[in-house]
Amino acid sequence: MKKIKRWFKPDPETLHNLLTKNRWLWKIINNVPFLHDMLMKRVYTVRSDNIDSPPLYESDHEYVTLDATYNMSYYARVLPPVPRECPTPMGTAGKKELPDIDLVVKKFFLRKEFKPDPIGTSVLFSYFAQHFTHQFFKTDLKRGPGFQWGNHGVDVSHIYGKDKSVENKLRSFKDGKLKTQIIDGEEWPPYAQDTNVPMIYPGHVQNDNRFALGHEFFGLLPGLLAYGTIWMREHNRVCDIMKKEHPDWDDERIFQTSKLIILGETIKIVIEDYVQHLSNYHFQLTFNPKLLFGELFQYQNRISVEFNHLYHWHPLMPSEFNISGTVYSQKDIMFHPEILVKHGMRNFFTFNNHGPTTIPVVKQLIQHGRTLRFQSFNQYRKRFDLKPFKSFEELTGDKKLAKDLEELYGDIDALEFYVGLTVEKRRPLALFGSTLIEIGSPFSVKGLMANAICSPRYWKPSTFGGDVGFDIVNTATLKKLFCANIKGECPYVSFRVHDYVEGDVKEKGYCGDESGCHDEL
Amino acid sequence: MKKIKRWFKPDPETLHNLLTKNRWLWKIINNVPFLHDMLMKRVYTVRSDNIDSPPLYESDHEYVTLDATYNMSYYARVLPPVPRECPTPMGTAGKKELPDIDLVVKKFFLRKEFKPDPIGTSVLFSYFAQHFTHQFFKTDLKRGPGFQWGNHGVDVSHIYGKDKSVENKLRSFKDGKLKTQIIDGEEWPPYAQDTNVPMIYPGHVQNDNRFALGHEFFGLLPGLLAYGTIWMREHNRVCDIMKKEHPDWDDERIFQTSKLIILGETIKIVIEDYVQHLSNYHFQLTFNPKLLFGELFQYQNRISVEFNHLYHWHPLMPSEFNISGTVYSQKDIMFHPEILVKHGMRNFFTFNNHGPTTIPVVKQLIQHGRTLRFQSFNQYRKRFDLKPFKSFEELTGDKKLAKDLEELYGDIDALEFYVGLTVEKRRPLALFGSTLIEIGSPFSVKGLMANAICSPRYWKPSTFGGDVGFDIVNTATLKKLFCANIKGECPYVSFRVHDYVEGDVKEKGYCGDESGCHDEL
Repeated sequence: MKKIKRWFKPDPETLHNLLTKNRWLWKIINNVPFLHDMLMKRVYTVRSDNIDSPPLYESDHEYVTLDATYNMSYYARVLPPVPRECPTPMGTAGKKELPDIDLVVKKFFLRKEFKPDPIGTSVLFSYFAQHFTHQFFKTDLKRGPGFQWGNHGVDVSHIYGKDKSVENKLRSFKDGKLKTQIIDGEEWPPYAQDTNVPMIYPGHVQNDNRFALGHEFFGLLPGLLAYGTIWMREHNRVCDIMKKEHPDWDDERIFQTSKLIILGETIKIVIEDYVQHLSNYHFQLTFNPKLLFGELFQYQNRISVEFNHLYHWHPLMPSEFNISGTVYSQKDIMFHPEILVKHGMRNFFTFNNHGPTTIPVVKQLIQHGRTLRFQSFNQYRKRFDLKPFKSFEELTGDKKLAKDLEELYGDIDALEFYVGLTVEKRRPLALFGSTLIEIGSPFSVKGLMANAICSPRYWKPSTFGGDVGFDIVNTATLKKLFCANIKGECPYVSFRVHDYVEGDVKEKGYCGDESGCHDEL
Repeated sequence: MKKIKRWFKPDPETLHNLLTKNRWLWKIINNVPFLHDMLMKRVYTVRSDNIDSPPLYESDHEYVTLDATYNMSYYARVLPPVPRECPTPMGTAGKKELPDIDLVVKKFFLRKEFKPDPIGTSVLFSYFAQHFTHQFFKTDLKRGPGFQWGNHGVDVSHIYGKDKSVENKLRSFKDGKLKTQIIDGEEWPPYAQDTNVPMIYPGHVQNDNRFALGHEFFGLLPGLLAYGTIWMREHNRVCDIMKKEHPDWDDERIFQTSKLIILGETIKIVIEDYVQHLSNYHFQLTFNPKLLFGELFQYQNRISVEFNHLYHWHPLMPSEFNISGTVYSQKDIMFHPEILVKHGMRNFFTFNNHGPTTIPVVKQLIQHGRTLRFQSFNQYRKRFDLKPFKSFEELTGDKKLAKDLEELYGDIDALEFYVGLTVEKRRPLALFGSTLIEIGSPFSVKGLMANAICSPRYWKPSTFGGDVGFDIVNTATLKKLFCANIKGECPYVSFRVHDYVEGDVKEKGYCGDESGCHDEL
C-alpha cells in the first residue's frame, strides 16, 4: 500500500528505480487495463503540468510579457533569463566570469576512453531522434539563439517541408502521393534539381546524390535520408489504402488525410517505441489521447529553448558504421547519401557504436546558453521539482571531475545548464542522468499529447479517413514502419541492438552507479 | 424551481427574455456572489464550448486538415465549405445560382425609412466595436478572403502596432511611455511623418493631420482617432503609476507591464461595458478569469472568418454627427481627423444617430461569403444549437420581405449567412436578431477569456506589476477610461444615449416584435 502511494508522489529517483526494475510487477500492471491506464494518465498529467501553457517567458525579458504568448518567433523559456544587473552570470552564485568555453569543452566534452551505453541503444535510435526533433528545433540564428522559425510542435514538416511551397514541390498531385524515383529497383525521394526543393548540400555532392526531402539538411547524413525515405514510402503506402477505401476521393483529400495519419503514426511510434526505449521502463508506455479527455490539459505547445539545448545528443552518433560488412567512418558517411542507396535500405540498420562529440556544435551551444543568460543547472533542477545538488561530487559521482568543475565554476549553484546535463552521473540502467530525463520528459509528453490531433474533436476515425486509417495510427510501430516499406525479408528493426542483454553492460563494469558515464554524453 | 432548471438548458429565446426582463430578480442574483458567479461561469463555459479549440477547419478544405491548426494564416472556419461538387451553392437546397448581389443589396440592405435602435445605443459603442475588433479582423486580401495576417486574438496590436517595428516607432523609450504631442493644450498621438509609422491616408490629408496610431487605418475616422488617443493617454497614465510603484524599473519593464495592464483593462471593459450593453441583460456580466480555473477550457483562440462576417456592423454608424452644436455628415467626417482635434476630446461623444449602410463593403462581403462557399444561414443556426427557420416569414416576421427573399433564394435552407443575419427580425429589446447574438457570443466569450492573461499562471498581481496594477485591471470601466484621460469635468460617457428610457422606443411602435427592424442592420 505504501509502495502504491509512493507512485503518486514519489521522488524521481525512487520512481526511476521502481520503473526500471521489478519486471514481474510491471508485467502484471501492463496487463490490467484499469491500473495501466490510470498510471499512464498520471504520466501524461504530471509531466505536462510542469510546462507553462500558454508560455510565460521568452529570452529578451526577465519577467512576463505579452510577447511570450503572441510572438511565435521566440522560443519559449521555462525560466526567464538572469537579470543583467546581477553580480554574477548565474545571479549571485559563482565567479564574476564564466570559464573559457574551450577549456570547458576540452575538460568535460572530449572523450578520453570509449564506453558503450548501458541499455544497448542502436544507431536507429539516434537517427530517429535527429530526424524527429528537427521538425521543431529550428533556431533562427539570423535573429539570435532565442528565436525560431517553426510551428512549435509535431507538424510533420520534416517530412512534408517547412511550408506549402515546399510541400507542393514534394507532391506528385496524383492519388495523394509524394514524388518518388526508382533507383536499382528501390523507391527513393526525387532529386532536388527535378523538384526545385531548396536543399543544402556541400559543393562536392553530385546532382544525382542530391535528394529532395522535407528538411533542407536531411540529405547530409544517410540516416536522415533513410528515415526521410521510409516515411515517404509510408505516406504513399497509406495513400494507396485511402484510395481503396475512398475511391471517390481526389488527390487533395487523400494527401491531407494521409498526412494526418502519418502524424498520428509518428506520435504513436515516438511514445511507444522511442520514449519507451529512452525511459528503459518496464511499465509499458502507451499513446492514448482519450486518457486526457476530461482532464485539465492545454492542447497547445511551444518549444522552449531549454528543450532544444537539452536535446543536443550529438555524442550518440557512432564513429564507425558497418554496412553489410563495409566499415565507414563518421567522416566518410557525412554528406554521402549515395552510401545508403548503394547498400539499399535493408542493410543499413545493423550495428551499434558510439562516437566523439561534435565539438563545434557544443561550443556554440554553450555560448548560446550564455548569450541567453540561462539560469544555473540547479535552478532548473528546482524548477522541475528535483533537489538541487549540494556539491559537484554529488552531481558527478566522480572526485576528479568534481575537482575540475569546482575549480572552473567555484560553486555548484553557478554551474551552466548544458554542462550540468553533460557531467551528471548516469542513472543506473539509463542512457542519461536524472536531470535530462526529468526536464526532457515534461517537454516531450506535453509536446506530443498537446498536438491538435489528440484533442477530443480531432481524435476520432473521421479525422483519419475512417476506421481503417484510425487503425493504422493505433497499431503503428517502428517495426511495422520499416517492414511495410522495405522489400524482401524484414531486417532486425529496434532501438536496441539485437544482442543486448539487460544488465550485461553494467555487470561488465562499464557503466555502474559509480562510474558516472559522464564522459560520453 | 422549474424556472431555475430552465436556466441551465433553456432555449435561447427563453433565456434572452429572462435576461432582458425581470430586473428585480436579476438585482437579487447580481448581489448574491455565489449565485452570480455560478451563472457567470456557466456563461463562459456554455458559450466557449460552441467553438472548436483547436480549430478543425479552414476555407480551402471541406474536411479536417493539419493546416487548420498549424497554418495561422488561415482564418478558422466553424463549418467547412460546401463541397464544390454539390448540386447547388448551398449543398442541395435552393437554386443552381445565387441571386445577383446588386439585387440582394438593393432589396435588403438599402434603408427605406430610418428607425432608431431600441436600446439607445450611442455612437461611442459603434466606434468602440470598430476600434476593438480591428486588432484581430485583419483579412489578407492578397491571399484571399479566407486568410488573415493577425494574431488571432486580443493582442492590443490596434494600440501598439502590428509588429515590433511599429511598436518601437510609437514608443518614446522613456519611462515606458508612448510618444505624444501637445496640440491646443491637449495630448495627441504623434504625426506619422515624425515617427515613420506606416499609416494610410487619402492624398488630401495634410501632414499635420496624419496621426500615427497602432492601426494603419485608424486615422481615417475621428472616432477611431479618439479611441486611439484615449488608450495612448491611458497607457502613459499607467506608466506613471508603475514608475511610482517601481522606481527601479527601466523603460522596457514599465512599457511591457503597462501593455499587459492595458490588455487587461481592454478585456474588462469589453465584457463589463461593451458586451453588457450589447446583451441588454439585467444580469451583470463580469470579467473574472478565476471562475474558469479548474474548468475544461483551452487558453488559445483562432479568429473564424464567420465571426468576421458577422461583425460587419457598418450600418450602426450614424449619418450625421453633432459635435458641440455643429452638424457634420458622414462624408464630412471621413478622412478628417482634424475635426476631433478642433472640438477636443471632451465634446465628441454626445449624440445618437443611425445612418446608411456602407454599400460597397456589404457587396464585397457577400461576394466573399460565396467565394468561401459558406454553408447556409440555417446550417449555422443548427451548428449553434438554434432551430433552423422553417420559412422566410418565420425568419423575418415580415410578409413582404419574406416574399422577396423566397423569390430570390427559393428555399429558406438556401439563404446566405450574412443576408440571413441582416434580414432576421430583431429580438425584443435587442440591437440584433437572435442568430447574430447566439453565434457572435461564443466567439466573443471564447476570444476574451482564452487570452493568455486569463490563464492561471498569468492571472496574478505579479504579471501586472503588483497589486496596484492588478487593481487597475480589475476596476477598469469605460467611464474611468475616459474620465481619467480627459481634462476638465468628465463628459457623459456611456454606450447608451443619455436620454434613453427602457421600452421607450418600443412603446412608440418603432421596433416591436412584429416590425422586425431588419432594414437597419
